[in-house]
Amino acid sequence: MIIMKKDATPEQIQHVIDEVARAGLRTDVSRGQHLTVLGLVGDERRVDFAHLAALPGVKEARMIEAPYKLINREYSSAYGETSTHIIKIGPVEIGGEEPLFIAGPCAVESREALFRIAEQVKAAGAHVLRGGVFKPRSSVHSFQGLGSAGNDEAVEALTWLKEAGEAFGMPVVTEVRGEAQVELVSQFVDIIQIGSRNMYDQDLLQAAARKNLPVMFKRHFGASVEEFLCFAEYIAAEGNKDIILCERGIVPVGKGKNFTRYLLDLAAVPVVQKETFLPIIVDPSHATGRRDLIRSMSLASIAAGASGLMIEVHDRPEEALVDASQMISPAELKEIITVARQLRQIAVK
Amino acid sequence: MIIMKKDATPEQIQHVIDEVARAGLRTDVSRGQHLTVLGLVGDERRVDFAHLAALPGVKEARMIEAPYKLINREYSSAYGETSTHIIKIGPVEIGGEEPLFIAGPCAVESREALFRIAEQVKAAGAHVLRGGVFKPRSSVHSFQGLGSAGNDEAVEALTWLKEAGEAFGMPVVTEVRGEAQVELVSQFVDIIQIGSRNMYDQDLLQAAARKNLPVMFKRHFGASVEEFLCFAEYIAAEGNKDIILCERGIVPVGKGKNFTRYLLDLAAVPVVQKETFLPIIVDPSHATGRRDLIRSMSLASIAAGASGLMIEVHDRPEEALVDASQMISPAELKEIITVARQLRQIAVK
Amino acid sequence: MIIMKKDATPEQIQHVIDEVARAGLRTDVSRGQHLTVLGLVGDERRVDFAHLAALPGVKEARMIEAPYKLINREYSSAYGETSTHIIKIGPVEIGGEEPLFIAGPCAVESREALFRIAEQVKAAGAHVLRGGVFKPRSSVHSFQGLGSAGNDEAVEALTWLKEAGEAFGMPVVTEVRGEAQVELVSQFVDIIQIGSRNMYDQDLLQAAARKNLPVMFKRHFGASVEEFLCFAEYIAAEGNKDIILCERGIVPVGKGKNFTRYLLDLAAVPVVQKETFLPIIVDPSHATGRRDLIRSMSLASIAAGASGLMIEVHDRPEEALVDASQMISPAELKEIITVARQLRQIAVK
Amino acid sequence: MIIMKKDATPEQIQHVIDEVARAGLRTDVSRGQHLTVLGLVGDERRVDFAHLAALPGVKEARMIEAPYKLINREYSSAYGETSTHIIKIGPVEIGGEEPLFIAGPCAVESREALFRIAEQVKAAGAHVLRGGVFKPRSSVHSFQGLGSAGNDEAVEALTWLKEAGEAFGMPVVTEVRGEAQVELVSQFVDIIQIGSRNMYDQDLLQAAARKNLPVMFKRHFGASVEEFLCFAEYIAAEGNKDIILCERGIVPVGKGKNFTRYLLDLAAVPVVQKETFLPIIVDPSHATGRRDLIRSMSLASIAAGASGLMIEVHDRPEEALVDASQMISPAELKEIITVARQLRQIAVK
Repeated sequence: MIIMKKDATPEQIQHVIDEVARAGLRTDVSRGQHLTVLGLVGDERRVDFAHLAALPGVKEARMIEAPYKLINREYSSAYGETSTHIIKIGPVEIGGEEPLFIAGPCAVESREALFRIAEQVKAAGAHVLRGGVFKPRSSVHSFQGLGSAGNDEAVEALTWLKEAGEAFGMPVVTEVRGEAQVELVSQFVDIIQIGSRNMYDQDLLQAAARKNLPVMFKRHFGASVEEFLCFAEYIAAEGNKDIILCERGIVPVGKGKNFTRYLLDLAAVPVVQKETFLPIIVDPSHATGRRDLIRSMSLASIAAGASGLMIEVHDRPEEALVDASQMISPAELKEIITVARQLRQIAVK
Repeated sequence: MIIMKKDATPEQIQHVIDEVARAGLRTDVSRGQHLTVLGLVGDERRVDFAHLAALPGVKEARMIEAPYKLINREYSSAYGETSTHIIKIGPVEIGGEEPLFIAGPCAVESREALFRIAEQVKAAGAHVLRGGVFKPRSSVHSFQGLGSAGNDEAVEALTWLKEAGEAFGMPVVTEVRGEAQVELVSQFVDIIQIGSRNMYDQDLLQAAARKNLPVMFKRHFGASVEEFLCFAEYIAAEGNKDIILCERGIVPVGKGKNFTRYLLDLAAVPVVQKETFLPIIVDPSHATGRRDLIRSMSLASIAAGASGLMIEVHDRPEEALVDASQMISPAELKEIITVARQLRQIAVK
Repeated sequence: MIIMKKDATPEQIQHVIDEVARAGLRTDVSRGQHLTVLGLVGDERRVDFAHLAALPGVKEARMIEAPYKLINREYSSAYGETSTHIIKIGPVEIGGEEPLFIAGPCAVESREALFRIAEQVKAAGAHVLRGGVFKPRSSVHSFQGLGSAGNDEAVEALTWLKEAGEAFGMPVVTEVRGEAQVELVSQFVDIIQIGSRNMYDQDLLQAAARKNLPVMFKRHFGASVEEFLCFAEYIAAEGNKDIILCERGIVPVGKGKNFTRYLLDLAAVPVVQKETFLPIIVDPSHATGRRDLIRSMSLASIAAGASGLMIEVHDRPEEALVDASQMISPAELKEIITVARQLRQIAVK
Repeated sequence: MIIMKKDATPEQIQHVIDEVARAGLRTDVSRGQHLTVLGLVGDERRVDFAHLAALPGVKEARMIEAPYKLINREYSSAYGETSTHIIKIGPVEIGGEEPLFIAGPCAVESREALFRIAEQVKAAGAHVLRGGVFKPRSSVHSFQGLGSAGNDEAVEALTWLKEAGEAFGMPVVTEVRGEAQVELVSQFVDIIQIGSRNMYDQDLLQAAARKNLPVMFKRHFGASVEEFLCFAEYIAAEGNKDIILCERGIVPVGKGKNFTRYLLDLAAVPVVQKETFLPIIVDPSHATGRRDLIRSMSLASIAAGASGLMIEVHDRPEEALVDASQMISPAELKEIITVARQLRQIAVK
């Protein structure tokens, strides 16, 4: 849609119509009292709206249709997708009737600790094991995960993760932070995670998508829902629609404290479910950064309709090297999973 | 707490200590390798930290303790408040075991419509009737509620509200938008509402507080939780602790669309419950602005531990003059209340 | 403009057209490949877009034209306003060739201090004297200005302000924080200030506008430029177009520190000048909260085209009771004014 | 600094002190009436504050000192850096007396257009030539720059850029969007640009830093200044301090329109100059996205003390494939450079 300025000349309007025609679309002209609006007839993706916006006499030019098509629920009927896309990883389903629980330590720290925690989260009801090898950190002076110590230690940590998953019958997920890690990580995991900080990193998204593994894709903490879906489209455009979206909180607004690390946007859950056919889960651990809020935000997420949760768990939080303040115990996880399953039955029609 | 600059002189440190002493407090000095930290011993409210921050050699001066005292859970033991403050309005309790449901039209439009809707929300399970008389609007060119048409019509609308409440056995709540309305409104309602846009309006807060009616106090859409509580403190400072806090969404961040009017901050619910002893409810109607998201956000709010919900209801949404797109039907309200009560039983320990 | 959903029926489209016709406008229908767009022909202000957005089959409904008309530069030619509106207060002009400088202490603290500072800011080149009597504060535990101590002290402080203005030949400005103060304050000042926190307070805006004094209107720290102008329209709608807009920073986004109190939005200066014919000035004192940033932000404001500056000045900042950390000395003010005038000559064509 | 909870036991305090000692630091204890504060003596980088924060009895644990050390002005005296770091690239200096002007098209589109524009920006007074080869885009359906078409075309575009720089005597800069591009790009350019979207991409930062070319590092649009500097520290930690910081706007807050693409944070300029010894420039083109705001924001940036500007220029904006609406003409650039130089002389002491 293009809105012409009040004083746009007939020549300027014709120029815009000609430019639209060059892209193969037709234009319907609607003259209001003060403004003239041009509606485009045809595939708006073929039009460069920034280019049109720069033409003389143009006040505003924007796409009316959603900028993401491949993951769009409304457009998906053409592809035979009519309900939420269910992603299957061995016996595990994401996006179906049952909520999915991903759990594990923030960072893989030792084989022994990982196996110990894996056993406990499995017993608590978790389906997928998580553990960070390449940790994104705000400060170069902080512990960066075993992955950053170089390839040998990264391979060792990834091996532990894979073995722990096999030992306790859980698919595993870990994060890739850079393109150079994709090839390596894809040999060890069942799901590749793209973290919040890398959401806009289109080259990494494409590299990860091409491995044909499910991709867990986290929203950037400064991104709108529309941007989140636009970048998920980069993954889908590589032919990989096994995308698990993950809401993990955005930066808070306002002076003074909000008492949580980020601001969890739970309305994004039903919004994303209406906009796309992809499943969306929630990460209450990073969203709040507070152990004592994990339970309430987990239950709220499930009540909002989320397809699952990713929760950081440690049996000895005081020994954790990263994000200790947000880890819950295996016993707390078990109670959350139990209650969440009951809520799901009642809340989701 | 006062942090001195790296190169602060002993004389500058002594000057700060003397200034603190003038306010009647003592100072403990802690010298680090790079910085010296002064901790205050005594009632920090007697100290002007902005003044201290301006003294030579001072890097930072701030109060460690919460800036809200009277509503602070931690400090409230001194006042004998050890659990959530339960507010009683006739037979209705806010902050207790049962979640509270406030419902009604956005704006009072006619006696007939109000009575019709009041009857239906009562039947659906609502406890309190809401209806706007003085409507805050973004544009001076929009319908401003009957209240803005002048006192005669405002009195008429308030009378309808009071009578509808009495007819169906529900306390009533309406918003005051300016100090000039407080006296009038207080004669007709059981709860005075301070809307989001007026959160920072300390004169209005004080005027409303002095009526000794419960005050429903909504968070501003640009305010942090800390600011929200600081301004609630203005009400408490008038001796009125019957404050019902209300989370209703904050402005979204990011480029592009979020598909909701505001961003509902549900982590604020447990955070506020830990910080204060006041009950907090949620308004999903204004937070989302979307009828199709009211159910999921209502259930998520209850799962997060909210003490209640305020929901806009209209039996003929297409006839509503304000905010028609966010109103649900009485039948939808009934289903939400039923499910929410079940969730509450399971979710809240 | 109304965008219909992909699956909207012809009956739904006709229903929307009928509703638009009820408001006295015509509709042009433009059918795209996926969506149908309805353009309105006539005065869009007569249409309730929220109502239309709630009709079945409607995907989006919004006003294309600006929601503020009376202060709109594009629409103002009809009123004979073709350039920036120049506001005259005695010998002082705001919005003309010369930048305007408003200076004075944050709060009026004593007659002696006020006169001392007034004399010095006049000598430094300031045109208007500022001084707070009713101070909005985040904490009820902070000093609230002499105004909050009750009417006698407020009258005394206002008298000092008026007398200081007369003594040194400067019009004076002070803030009203609540409607109850408007009548009193208007008897003492030449310009009524509406502070940032009260921007959305439409009843206060109308009360202040009716005094027929120029109104300095500050942007709320959570408001977009569009909202800012929508609320300025409330003042204009009372027949008072002597509105001095003031940019003073908005809340920052992001985790971690920005090292300033607010985020000064200097692009708002040329944007507002293109959107309206009203003059806009900048308040670097509250925007940054830092004495050491006042100079650079003042010069940047003038280079951006601002019609003036409001700067907090104190000759003994260590004695200031409010916001001491952001006050500059009279000597610093003089240097800023001198340099700013030179910059203005070079920067503004 | 560690703040203990009100009810922390002596044993808990001792436990914290022991943990700090394990990291090789000493602790000073300051007991207030309500809280006990522990100040650390020694190198705080050896302490894991998240670990301490999880210990029993701890209310808050945080580093007082800046999390960036290597680029910190305060700490830099130890390294012999006492004033702004001047970066030299052949005859060009960044961070010295004269402001630096980087100009060129948004994207390299053809050899002919690039040479034509390069000649004109050189004549207008620009020092460095910019041109995008690998363009980050929000939509996978938009033109992605020649670089994304594959290596052959990328090499061709980079060759044009290098040759245009040599032909007109200007160092050249282009953006790397992924690690895989660093090796290639470093062979053709004088400055490597890390774009806003990649600010958090620590692996890319390290890869770029290791090429020992100056790095132009743009702030992410959701990042605080502190985060921006924390990630610049990743570059410095590789031994490369030739970092040109670039402010380019952050996401706006608030409902409604701000009329600019991002919100330019000019206070970040003096703030960064106080916090670090690195030069900072401003990109008004991406910040505003509006041709008609480039001049005012360029002048404001220089008045704020920026060490330079990066401006997108095109001699035929209507033909530009990307971001046409924000490009100015070479003649406009020339006028801006002329005025900016005069402003600099007056504004910067």
